[in-house]
Amino acid sequence: MPAITRDDLAALDATDPLARFGERFELPDGIIYLDGNSLGALPKAVKERIARAVEEEWGHDLIRSWNLHDWYTLPGRAGDKIGQLIGARPGEVVAADSTSVNLFKLLAAAVKLRAGRSVIVSEPGNFPTDLYVAQGLGELLGGIELRLAEPNELAQAIGDDTAVVMLTHVNYKTGRLHDMAAVTRMAHEAGALMLWDLAHSAGALPVDLSGAGADLAVGCGYKYLNGGPGAPAFLYVAERLQDDIRPPLSGWMGHAAPFEFDIDYHPAEGIARNLCGTPAILSMAGLDAALDLMLEADMAAIRAKSVALCDAFAALVEQDCAGHGFELASPPAAMRGSQVSFRHEQGYAIMQALIGRGVIGDFRAPDLMRFGFAPLYIRHVDVFDAVAILRKIMDTRAWDAPEYHARSAVT
Amino acid sequence: MPAITRDDLAALDATDPLARFGERFELPDGIIYLDGNSLGALPKAVKERIARAVEEEWGHDLIRSWNLHDWYTLPGRAGDKIGQLIGARPGEVVAADSTSVNLFKLLAAAVKLRAGRSVIVSEPGNFPTDLYVAQGLGELLGGIELRLAEPNELAQAIGDDTAVVMLTHVNYKTGRLHDMAAVTRMAHEAGALMLWDLAHSAGALPVDLSGAGADLAVGCGYKYLNGGPGAPAFLYVAERLQDDIRPPLSGWMGHAAPFEFDIDYHPAEGIARNLCGTPAILSMAGLDAALDLMLEADMAAIRAKSVALCDAFAALVEQDCAGHGFELASPPAAMRGSQVSFRHEQGYAIMQALIGRGVIGDFRAPDLMRFGFAPLYIRHVDVFDAVAILRKIMDTRAWDAPEYHARSAVT
Repeated sequence: MPAITRDDLAALDATDPLARFGERFELPDGIIYLDGNSLGALPKAVKERIARAVEEEWGHDLIRSWNLHDWYTLPGRAGDKIGQLIGARPGEVVAADSTSVNLFKLLAAAVKLRAGRSVIVSEPGNFPTDLYVAQGLGELLGGIELRLAEPNELAQAIGDDTAVVMLTHVNYKTGRLHDMAAVTRMAHEAGALMLWDLAHSAGALPVDLSGAGADLAVGCGYKYLNGGPGAPAFLYVAERLQDDIRPPLSGWMGHAAPFEFDIDYHPAEGIARNLCGTPAILSMAGLDAALDLMLEADMAAIRAKSVALCDAFAALVEQDCAGHGFELASPPAAMRGSQVSFRHEQGYAIMQALIGRGVIGDFRAPDLMRFGFAPLYIRHVDVFDAVAILRKIMDTRAWDAPEYHARSAVT
Repeated sequence: MPAITRDDLAALDATDPLARFGERFELPDGIIYLDGNSLGALPKAVKERIARAVEEEWGHDLIRSWNLHDWYTLPGRAGDKIGQLIGARPGEVVAADSTSVNLFKLLAAAVKLRAGRSVIVSEPGNFPTDLYVAQGLGELLGGIELRLAEPNELAQAIGDDTAVVMLTHVNYKTGRLHDMAAVTRMAHEAGALMLWDLAHSAGALPVDLSGAGADLAVGCGYKYLNGGPGAPAFLYVAERLQDDIRPPLSGWMGHAAPFEFDIDYHPAEGIARNLCGTPAILSMAGLDAALDLMLEADMAAIRAKSVALCDAFAALVEQDCAGHGFELASPPAAMRGSQVSFRHEQGYAIMQALIGRGVIGDFRAPDLMRFGFAPLYIRHVDVFDAVAILRKIMDTRAWDAPEYHARSAVT
């Protein structure tokens, strides 16, 4: 295979249909940001939208903004925008709370919907918070088993005792992609519900919840959706199940008539019953603007560029850093989300050295270096430049400096 | 009693030790904002802090802000600031999620801590979402009774079957104040836990959770704390109980070692285990700045001015709107929070007419007009001017116009 050159990648940028989105983001000079899978970059429109929500809506119009600026319907409006990215129908998604809280709501609902079945099936490589939430629900209710099985053993693990199968579509460490339709079918054949965590999928690749027949889903607003740190998350409930869900977190925003101040809870029609308390309006306004930007882009183009960026990165590391001990931890494109991970025994120090030189990825213990590629603001040449910096770090052993070995509280 | 004049109130403003706080808020010209009990006004410092969190922390420092700007400890730092306002010790409060979600966490914890007892006692006049949350928990767990008793019947309602007594300190409709120490003692004498909702208390009047011996509390960030629409709420757990709580919403932020990505949940030491998912960083940064402003003020001065504002309002309505059918719904100062409510059969239309003339209070069906007084930004003369406008509306029957009778979705 001929060597990949910077000119090759510059040529891809020259014809990139998504190139125009780069200037829509605020990215600091000298930074190659390969951590949009952990916290998406700041869209300029979001900065403006939040400032407007603070100054005009809150500051000037005050409490009247619930009507004047339609705060009341914002969770549903933002939810429907997310729905367009994940193959949901209008009215099947709301933006609300955090991913973990939403997961609790839907897991609890699933266990009630499949009364008589006591098992939640997941995999040990699922994002830990998902497992923690299932454990917490299990302790609260009692009699619930969390059964963990590796992906290739799921078929054996799912049975007629299974209330719900809970999996993250794109593995947070390796980027490995589950076959959403096949696994959903497997769950349904056993009479179980299927709950997908789309934290690393929404906005990163085409998702078709309806096509897969999925029942429930949750996901994150601050990764590929660029909603900002701690942006509201979202949840999806297939329309056919909505009326049967009695929300465990039953707050005023999910009430059928929240301003009648009835003392009895009556769930709202449809997806809205899955709301609980007052939404984080300022953060949600930011997320809403980020979604408008995302919806301007073509998802097929996002996926095509994502694959090209990831493939180029993996190939360049093999080409330019051979012999330096990197082991590819991600599968090939067809089975991968929008990230590439490498294992390296000095991964922590190498990542610190990269960050010190403006290439921002992240590290997951014990040895995993993660590089996320957000096609709206990463150029093909960024991939080349990032690997050139990595190569120099390896060739000069620059990672082997004391400051790159000190662990911080948060990595 | 001699008539109250505008000059009387201007004289109080002239010597008001809190007068200097007025200019720290962004309030639109021509507005008298008497709804800070529903959504606090915008402090200038909060506008600046949110802009900095968006542009510098998120936009420029990106994922590194978890360390660089200490996002990770923000819920505890903001919580400790709230703790100073409510008589909590350091490490007993965190800012997190919504009031409703926090209430679910603590109610569930309380029911587990008092296993064998199955009753949650509250009052029918509690804020509805509190009752809804208890109902949702009861349905989820089964075998839980929500027993509602009027305040004067609480002693009979609380018994050896009671796991937890859940009350809102300041009644959202009338402003009536519970005797926190006495009710807490009553709960404890029956072996029950005491959970206070401080939604209308925190930042409005002195609260002493430690002194009262309270066990658990929740409260709101966007009312008297001025954190912005949907700002994070807070929760309090007395130190003596913290280690015994197994959080039902067990997410990564409450894990003992969130970055070790252990697949088993191990709760963090202390209050932090009551965190769940990723906090709404932008909103929490705003709340944090609002708390700094609040802590500059003396709580005794806040309470003194609050009482003076409320008393003046009630007296002026009696003085200037006599014969117009207003019925005072709030108790005297010693038993009242920072609001005054009147019943009027045309309350909805009258409130709309007031809002149309720049006096913003709110309405709660069927007939209650609420006026909240936030001493940091309401002047004594504002009270006079608001009542003068109310009098004119009544004298001219200006409320009796069709546009003031049309109900909007949100009131």
